[in-house]
Amino acid sequence: MDDTHQHGYIQRKDDYLKRLRRIEGQARGLQRMVDDEAYCIDILTQVTAMTKALHAVSLGLLEEHMSHCVVDAAREDHELGQAKVTEAMDAITRLVRS
Amino acid sequence: MDDTHQHGYIQRKDDYLKRLRRIEGQARGLQRMVDDEAYCIDILTQVTAMTKALHAVSLGLLEEHMSHCVVDAAREDHELGQAKVTEAMDAITRLVRS
Amino acid sequence: MDDTHQHGYIQRKDDYLKRLRRIEGQARGLQRMVDDEAYCIDILTQVTAMTKALHAVSLGLLEEHMSHCVVDAAREDHELGQAKVTEAMDAITRLVRS
Amino acid sequence: MDDTHQHGYIQRKDDYLKRLRRIEGQARGLQRMVDDEAYCIDILTQVTAMTKALHAVSLGLLEEHMSHCVVDAAREDHELGQAKVTEAMDAITRLVRS
Repeated sequence: MDDTHQHGYIQRKDDYLKRLRRIEGQARGLQRMVDDEAYCIDILTQVTAMTKALHAVSLGLLEEHMSHCVVDAAREDHELGQAKVTEAMDAITRLVRS
Repeated sequence: MDDTHQHGYIQRKDDYLKRLRRIEGQARGLQRMVDDEAYCIDILTQVTAMTKALHAVSLGLLEEHMSHCVVDAAREDHELGQAKVTEAMDAITRLVRS
Repeated sequence: MDDTHQHGYIQRKDDYLKRLRRIEGQARGLQRMVDDEAYCIDILTQVTAMTKALHAVSLGLLEEHMSHCVVDAAREDHELGQAKVTEAMDAITRLVRS
Repeated sequence: MDDTHQHGYIQRKDDYLKRLRRIEGQARGLQRMVDDEAYCIDILTQVTAMTKALHAVSLGLLEEHMSHCVVDAAREDHELGQAKVTEAMDAITRLVRS
């Protein structure tokens, strides 16, 4: 891709950075909870909240990717569209099993 | 869509029918296990195998859908491609949380 | 376990059999949809509903198992309780990744 | 619980702290990738790795909880064991759907 190409998610870059900073903060909060020996179930509740936040980021990035890279590739060339679908499906498969 | 349209997965229709018949058989096998009061963990192992088989069917259908319907829609019209991506993302979101 | 032992879920055996029969019916319904070449996204919606129903069965069986087999084993003997927990955790790990 | 009670995971506290610090580092790495506009699929691969690491932490904490709190509660009192199982099942249900 050339230098002027902009990946789709750039439009919501600040939104993603903000969400990832919050997730980073959740990781730090979990360290405090473990260090303070908080109750396991309370820690698990926080880990689950963090996992959900990560899943939301994954799904958001995937949507950006599909509506920009995959659609653009398909419009440019049929084979290129297929290749991008295969690549996206590999990511979706890993995501579903994660 | 007109009468001559063929959904993508038709090419592997027999494969999907075979897999779904096997899944139906697994559902019957589970009923026998519950009826015979098999050990819970053994039943859970079978339920997990069945869930995996269903996930594989989901991912296969999704790949067919994306490489046919989504790519074709994108090639026909940009807006139509976007609409198909939105629809596919809704299905993926449900799948990831299922 | 001796002949008189009753696995925990027996109390809700009819409920599980009914749910598994419904799941078997969903597997047959999916075969009809594929055979009729229904729209992929509609099929995916049904597969997701079926996966959710299976997950609910898994979680129900797991709860029965833990509140009967695991608790009873722990009360009988500490080591036996640990062994049952290890076995249950293996099932939970498979379930989370399925 | 009294002041002298030690939650089970304390034994592997350093291990959990190390894993959570690594997860925190992954969250920072993801911010750099988004800031540098890395390719979506590469970002998704990293998010999936991070989600897997979090799931491993969840399962580890859950095992500690079950083999200590749940087993100990069951040994102390049947009803208390049941209550701990119900609480653990709620956490497992949230985990399976996260």
